[in-house]
Amino acid sequence: MTSRWIETVCPTPSVANEAAARERQSQLTKPPGSLGRLEDLAVTLAALQATDRPRAAAAPIILFAGDHGVTAQNISAFPAAVTVEMLRNFASGGAAVAVLARELGVPLMVVDAGTLAKEPMAGVTSDKTRRGTRDFTVEAAMTGDELDEALAAGRRAVETAGPADLVLFGEMGIGNTTSAAAIASALLGKPPAEVAGAGTGLDEAGIAHKIAVIAQGLARHDLARAGVDPRRVLQTVGGFEIAALAGAIVAAAQRGCPVLVDGFIVTAAALVATRLNAGVRPWLMFSHVSAERGHATVLEALSADPILDLGLRLGEGSGAASALAILRLACALHNGMATFAEAAVTNRDAP
Amino acid sequence: MTSRWIETVCPTPSVANEAAARERQSQLTKPPGSLGRLEDLAVTLAALQATDRPRAAAAPIILFAGDHGVTAQNISAFPAAVTVEMLRNFASGGAAVAVLARELGVPLMVVDAGTLAKEPMAGVTSDKTRRGTRDFTVEAAMTGDELDEALAAGRRAVETAGPADLVLFGEMGIGNTTSAAAIASALLGKPPAEVAGAGTGLDEAGIAHKIAVIAQGLARHDLARAGVDPRRVLQTVGGFEIAALAGAIVAAAQRGCPVLVDGFIVTAAALVATRLNAGVRPWLMFSHVSAERGHATVLEALSADPILDLGLRLGEGSGAASALAILRLACALHNGMATFAEAAVTNRDAP
Repeated sequence: MTSRWIETVCPTPSVANEAAARERQSQLTKPPGSLGRLEDLAVTLAALQATDRPRAAAAPIILFAGDHGVTAQNISAFPAAVTVEMLRNFASGGAAVAVLARELGVPLMVVDAGTLAKEPMAGVTSDKTRRGTRDFTVEAAMTGDELDEALAAGRRAVETAGPADLVLFGEMGIGNTTSAAAIASALLGKPPAEVAGAGTGLDEAGIAHKIAVIAQGLARHDLARAGVDPRRVLQTVGGFEIAALAGAIVAAAQRGCPVLVDGFIVTAAALVATRLNAGVRPWLMFSHVSAERGHATVLEALSADPILDLGLRLGEGSGAASALAILRLACALHNGMATFAEAAVTNRDAP
Repeated sequence: MTSRWIETVCPTPSVANEAAARERQSQLTKPPGSLGRLEDLAVTLAALQATDRPRAAAAPIILFAGDHGVTAQNISAFPAAVTVEMLRNFASGGAAVAVLARELGVPLMVVDAGTLAKEPMAGVTSDKTRRGTRDFTVEAAMTGDELDEALAAGRRAVETAGPADLVLFGEMGIGNTTSAAAIASALLGKPPAEVAGAGTGLDEAGIAHKIAVIAQGLARHDLARAGVDPRRVLQTVGGFEIAALAGAIVAAAQRGCPVLVDGFIVTAAALVATRLNAGVRPWLMFSHVSAERGHATVLEALSADPILDLGLRLGEGSGAASALAILRLACALHNGMATFAEAAVTNRDAP
């Protein structure tokens, strides 16, 4: 099986709606440009939604979880068992992203795309390719068929979530900053040391070991060179949740649904998505710059201008959820403010 | 009359609640510190509110408006009439801060502390010292009695608003970036060029003229020297809304109510407030860094670490309102997340 669907063209944002939204912003009762990013965000959403009334109300969070064979190399501060334990915590509402989803009034859909869990869990959608990837320092993390399956799991989740104003993605997977850093290193041609960080809390010695493990994996699969194939990168050093994220991001873009990108892992998946399908990029909005080393590098490669900088480094979709609160204010302002004419306020250019 | 009340000591935040909140954060199901600023904000609020459950629900926005005699010197891109026109727009719900207040479900209290309006307006509290300040390039902006009256107007507004989890302040007043820059220049000993910016939209020539006007005013009142008295600065180059803000900030701190500081004008008022009463500073939280030149300088002088950087330069309380959305998420996470023990998730330090 090959994932031909992944190359289906994405629609393009509405230039007409973008211009109309920009024009409306210039008529609202404020000095031009004085709402800064809040203006830009509303205009971008108007273009993506092809509307004169951008919305950020229906904004499901889809969280993909997976386990990583490379955890055998001792590259995480937490044991692999935590992935499955956290799945329960997402479902029962105690995890950060679950709290944020509740506070924001948006649904949280949790998809097990390949964790070590042996049994289905209440509140978790099981769409597993396999119980964990293989250790990429020894062999490819997944087969080509498994990669296709994980990409399709992402698409299925987007289809299941249904129409939305925008979609937020999150992730959980002990070891996945190692996988994401390996992907970023290979695709950007950067040394692992530039994109590998503390993850859930490694010290400097731990980070040095993680860098060595990534370098070993990239060397084994001949990925430390220019022009590597993104599909092969994802297959050999990726994770099931990262592949599902990439598939979900492509599927959302193909449906014309804006994506609010979270932290390091989701941004790495977004990078892969833009390499798998060049029409994805306009559909991406970037929520925050994480404290995880490497995130800024990947954001820069995507010419991203993230909304928030709060020193977050949790993942789960927590940064995207935080930025959603700001997007909603941007929409409220765009749609709810009076124009100079409506409010009978003197504009600076008035005669 | 002299405002002795302004020197009444402020309470100090609860060290015990701060420590307890920090300890709780370390037990929540996430790597330590991984929620970055969202952790710090919750801990700070817990200390200020002396509680183990910080809240940002009841958060009234109090907006003070005033007009400025110095507009006679042509230092604004908009005519002075806009102040009063915007008062109507606040009351009728079309202005940015009114939209944000609605979206956030918080009350907006608009106080005319000294605009040129000749008659009361529906939805606007009239607590006017005078119809506009005097032109500070010619004479002191206000008398000592007028300053006391404006400070007291701020205190009265805080009393009227009643108990709250925290309070947000906003402002409106054509010409008030000139007044705020003059205050900042005098109190910080910085040249006007470092703290005077485009305001509502001056070009470079306009900014140069504004800088010259500020320098002229400071020279006339002998304020361009070290060790100037903050009260005299506020009286001679301040505005009624800025004095009301300073009084309101001091009054909120004296009541042990956290203040979420807005942009350039409110931060300049906060700077004065800390000079009038040294116990004010711990009660200040800083919402954002504005695009207005000078804001970063004043923030730095206050050792402030603002939450957002969205390129806003509108005032009105719009930056504070935006940051409130983030504070609410911080509180929700602090109060709503499960601990490692509650969720039966393995902590990294577990045996």
